[in-house]
Amino acid sequence: MANTPDSAANVAAFLTRVHQRSPLVHNVTNFVAMNSSANILLALGASPVMAHAPQEVAAMVGLADALVLNIGTLDAAWIESMLLAGLAANAKGIPVVLDPVGAGATRYRTETARRILDRVRIAVLRGNVSELLAVAGAAVRTRGVDSAIGVAESATLSLVAAARDLRCVIAASGETDLLTDGERTVQIRNGHRIMPRITALGCGLSAVTGAFCAVAGEIASVLDAAVAAFGYYGVCGERAAARSAGPGTFFPAFLDELYAVTPRELARSVRMGPVPH
Amino acid sequence: MANTPDSAANVAAFLTRVHQRSPLVHNVTNFVAMNSSANILLALGASPVMAHAPQEVAAMVGLADALVLNIGTLDAAWIESMLLAGLAANAKGIPVVLDPVGAGATRYRTETARRILDRVRIAVLRGNVSELLAVAGAAVRTRGVDSAIGVAESATLSLVAAARDLRCVIAASGETDLLTDGERTVQIRNGHRIMPRITALGCGLSAVTGAFCAVAGEIASVLDAAVAAFGYYGVCGERAAARSAGPGTFFPAFLDELYAVTPRELARSVRMGPVPH
Amino acid sequence: MANTPDSAANVAAFLTRVHQRSPLVHNVTNFVAMNSSANILLALGASPVMAHAPQEVAAMVGLADALVLNIGTLDAAWIESMLLAGLAANAKGIPVVLDPVGAGATRYRTETARRILDRVRIAVLRGNVSELLAVAGAAVRTRGVDSAIGVAESATLSLVAAARDLRCVIAASGETDLLTDGERTVQIRNGHRIMPRITALGCGLSAVTGAFCAVAGEIASVLDAAVAAFGYYGVCGERAAARSAGPGTFFPAFLDELYAVTPRELARSVRMGPVPH
Repeated sequence: MANTPDSAANVAAFLTRVHQRSPLVHNVTNFVAMNSSANILLALGASPVMAHAPQEVAAMVGLADALVLNIGTLDAAWIESMLLAGLAANAKGIPVVLDPVGAGATRYRTETARRILDRVRIAVLRGNVSELLAVAGAAVRTRGVDSAIGVAESATLSLVAAARDLRCVIAASGETDLLTDGERTVQIRNGHRIMPRITALGCGLSAVTGAFCAVAGEIASVLDAAVAAFGYYGVCGERAAARSAGPGTFFPAFLDELYAVTPRELARSVRMGPVPH
Repeated sequence: MANTPDSAANVAAFLTRVHQRSPLVHNVTNFVAMNSSANILLALGASPVMAHAPQEVAAMVGLADALVLNIGTLDAAWIESMLLAGLAANAKGIPVVLDPVGAGATRYRTETARRILDRVRIAVLRGNVSELLAVAGAAVRTRGVDSAIGVAESATLSLVAAARDLRCVIAASGETDLLTDGERTVQIRNGHRIMPRITALGCGLSAVTGAFCAVAGEIASVLDAAVAAFGYYGVCGERAAARSAGPGTFFPAFLDELYAVTPRELARSVRMGPVPH
Repeated sequence: MANTPDSAANVAAFLTRVHQRSPLVHNVTNFVAMNSSANILLALGASPVMAHAPQEVAAMVGLADALVLNIGTLDAAWIESMLLAGLAANAKGIPVVLDPVGAGATRYRTETARRILDRVRIAVLRGNVSELLAVAGAAVRTRGVDSAIGVAESATLSLVAAARDLRCVIAASGETDLLTDGERTVQIRNGHRIMPRITALGCGLSAVTGAFCAVAGEIASVLDAAVAAFGYYGVCGERAAARSAGPGTFFPAFLDELYAVTPRELARSVRMGPVPH
């Protein structure tokens, strides 16, 4: 896949801006990801904060530049806090990223993700394809998918339809990442096959997407922000894999790369391009 | 201690099977262990899931191949979820591993572990000797222990009695591990002295035991599964200690070894054998 | 800054004593810090325990040598547990360290920190300067600060005043650490600039301060204990930074150093001295 000068410049510009602005990213996330997402955001140069008490969650949003909601270890109290935080973020006008961990696995997760989407304006819905299709299910199900096209193409069309219906950017992680706002679709071929063997890396990508979206309004669209976040994350994953011996030594190396990679190095290494539809 | 061809073959066969099947292990575990247990299971090649909401815990068990309950940071709501999950696992027929972290330290922990054992059929109770004896207390206390035998032998007899009373495999971690189903007892002398200096490694072993038990029905007994899990864990601990400089660099190296060790390497390195009683 | 033989000897003596005694440190801390604080305490040679259920928190304090309270991911139930644990620690006479994470960021955090200080006798209040001044706010606000003196001096005077008002040791982390009991003030210039890029290192220092305070009564004052903890932590940070490539590989190296550094090496490397006021 040919990388275009535009996409490389976009990724580099976003990383530069995050470095300059150090956005505060408020996370209402799961217990598995809390430590690693905080370290990932710090390595990037953003400022993480974790807060979930209903007494302070809106006040903390008042200080934040982006909000990340993640249902990975959800329960009733945490969902209420996510809704409170999400509404406060909408009122303030900062972007909200939703990571619907495990949607499709249990009805509780699928319905919680939909409930959040119904009440909170989401900038980016990030997950793997099966989670995203589960969340989008009702909307997408009504569209016939031509049996003559392949599974990958079919998934792409479903994700594009979901982005239109849900009016947000859909960001699907996979061997090839697919990101779409319903009008424009981008694929990214960075990352490394070891990455699914480390827990909560997807959650960390949602947090990074929040940080990039925090500076999007100034230089580009939310889709561009999410694409830049994915490119940055994937390139650092490749660099970390090249200097580590397995999933354990990968993670410290990955944080080092998130910290050290320069906009110029990033621009040279991203492999992304438009998907026609 | 001489290793028998049988025990080496058993350990190798289990690792092969886990690699082939990638069992889904549902964990209701403590906040300290969540991230590390997930990474340990992923490194092994199993699939971890963490879920504790009463609204979904039974549904998640419906997808799982084993359940691991761990009371390390228990509270009333989590205990109810553990009971719900445990009953669902029993109904489905998948193995349940219980890790009674801190039993004996507070009455709340001891009684919670017993309450779970009273209501849920446990396949493997894994802990250190003092935790296990605390849980088994009432049953074991009634048996006189001959003051002429040593502490180690006395503990062995108590654990064997506990396994009979509780009708489960008792798996005791220590410098020498002792595992027994009440009829047959096995000791394992793998592992490394640095391992107690890393938090939640015991919890991670309970999770691994769950993964091995998930494939036990097909090839061997629950005791054999637990023995294989302990052997695998201890051998990887030795390999990690050999290439790390302290408890901090140990853990990433340990995950690398859990990921990389082959059944053949494992079979060569386990040191285990029967304990007559 | 010249290091005095006294301060070097003090730091070395404390580390020796912690190694000998392996104090049990009970933590009611935040979800981000739980795993890392446990690993930090284990690397030091202390014994960590995490427990928050109201049913057992006082019983666990009954086994502990120090208590560390940390409001980093507070909510109403956890605050009640912190108060229960704190009162039990006061009744037993073991030292309590309070880490007011995020005080000043939201009113809920500031008021919670003050509520704990009102009800529980705190040995050491550890945080960054802005958190500490937020907590001390009411008391410090009444003192005019001479506009002719610099910000650093002004902060020092405010911290000294806070220590007198709150009747505890105030331990402020920063590029230069400042610790004071209101009568005597010590500055420490160890540590490394990478450390703020790793999450929950401040929380880990609070935990280490708890371990050092646990053995203070026998050899020195609480201020000396806190100073020793900060010196130990900072020196290990420097040693870890020297052998790591970024914030990711820093943390495993840091645990290795916490584990390996000897009292003699520590005494040679601390840079601390009195601050006149």
